[in-house]
Amino acid sequence: MIFFQNFMKQITMVEDSSTPVLYTYFRSSCSWRVRIALALKGIAYEQVSINLIKDGGQQMTSDFQAVNPMHQVPVIKIDGITLSQSLAIIEYLEDSRPLPRLLPQDPKKRAAVRMISNHIASGIQPLQNLAVLQQMGEKKLDWAQRIISQGFKAVEQILQETAGCYCVGDEVTMADLCLVPQVYNAERFKVDLTPYPTISRINKALLELEAFQSSHPSRQPDTPPELKS
Amino acid sequence: MIFFQNFMKQITMVEDSSTPVLYTYFRSSCSWRVRIALALKGIAYEQVSINLIKDGGQQMTSDFQAVNPMHQVPVIKIDGITLSQSLAIIEYLEDSRPLPRLLPQDPKKRAAVRMISNHIASGIQPLQNLAVLQQMGEKKLDWAQRIISQGFKAVEQILQETAGCYCVGDEVTMADLCLVPQVYNAERFKVDLTPYPTISRINKALLELEAFQSSHPSRQPDTPPELKS
Repeated sequence: MIFFQNFMKQITMVEDSSTPVLYTYFRSSCSWRVRIALALKGIAYEQVSINLIKDGGQQMTSDFQAVNPMHQVPVIKIDGITLSQSLAIIEYLEDSRPLPRLLPQDPKKRAAVRMISNHIASGIQPLQNLAVLQQMGEKKLDWAQRIISQGFKAVEQILQETAGCYCVGDEVTMADLCLVPQVYNAERFKVDLTPYPTISRINKALLELEAFQSSHPSRQPDTPPELKS
Repeated sequence: MIFFQNFMKQITMVEDSSTPVLYTYFRSSCSWRVRIALALKGIAYEQVSINLIKDGGQQMTSDFQAVNPMHQVPVIKIDGITLSQSLAIIEYLEDSRPLPRLLPQDPKKRAAVRMISNHIASGIQPLQNLAVLQQMGEKKLDWAQRIISQGFKAVEQILQETAGCYCVGDEVTMADLCLVPQVYNAERFKVDLTPYPTISRINKALLELEAFQSSHPSRQPDTPPELKS
């Protein structure tokens, strides 16, 4: 198995002459999802930091407009294509570099992984993103807490049916890549995580893995010194 | 609890051999995505209407909480499992009933399909959904128009690279299943579609297909008589 993975990496290196480039921001939870996938799959890449705050947001420049007209990170340039949307990127990495798997082979388990991933990626994260929060004025913190709490209540219930060591069974999947960055956001917004013991247990187990640690917002090239760990 | 689980499994086993059940609402754009997929793949199904407005929203009942703790439609019961999140449902239909394909075989084209689908499903639709709009007060219409216009500007640019007759090439894909219901929402919010000629062209071509017509919000069992066509 290890030989096969190394062999696949060698093929990969031959196939694309250039290293993938990830446009990322240390604190972007969607960027973190992709950084975990790249780390787990052992894909070397270069980072271009897009500071979402500085100068009104570097994602708004005309240079970046050409990279992603949605003005969002992450974006990856890989194998001659430019891809945005974190779940689409992870699915492409899975299609093009299948091992280690981030989606189970069993179609029903794969469906559970995608359901949990989308609950977070469509049902929680966009609603507590900067663009929405800016509209909420004084209600900002209350809103973010409510959205994340409602979402986590649902995810906690779903995990009762699907979880093993991790979100779906005992292997790390795309759902875990969505969960950990969302818990990170929840902590930033001071959400009480006590009502979500399964989420908390899985998050803790995942944070012990090297791929989740090396990709952590506190350890990126663009992490401000005072936030580095 | 164990008795209940066994009972549920028995029910599930019976349901396995039976027709899929879709929990849907005629005007839900996410439900429409799935209705199109079911129609294209020729999958017979039963509909359970969940009225998102009546009685404060039937999705908030404890009965529906057990079906989808996120209190959202669509949900499908199929092959013994219960799935929510429209894209996860469509991917499962593709995995379990591959023909006709809604995802291209070429990994790079498949990535483009998922990117466009997620731009709509994570980047546009959630931000103009009821929960957010209710917070916007008088700014409601302006906000919805701004979110959809920004999103469509990006999608229009992406389509310059990917589109043939439809969003990605000349075959109907999951991206098309997301586009048409989002255009429907845009029209409800009176968004000027003139700046998006490619979106408008593709939307028009898709609406000529039977699967998009039979699944249309104006032709569902729960469509109010005054909105039927």
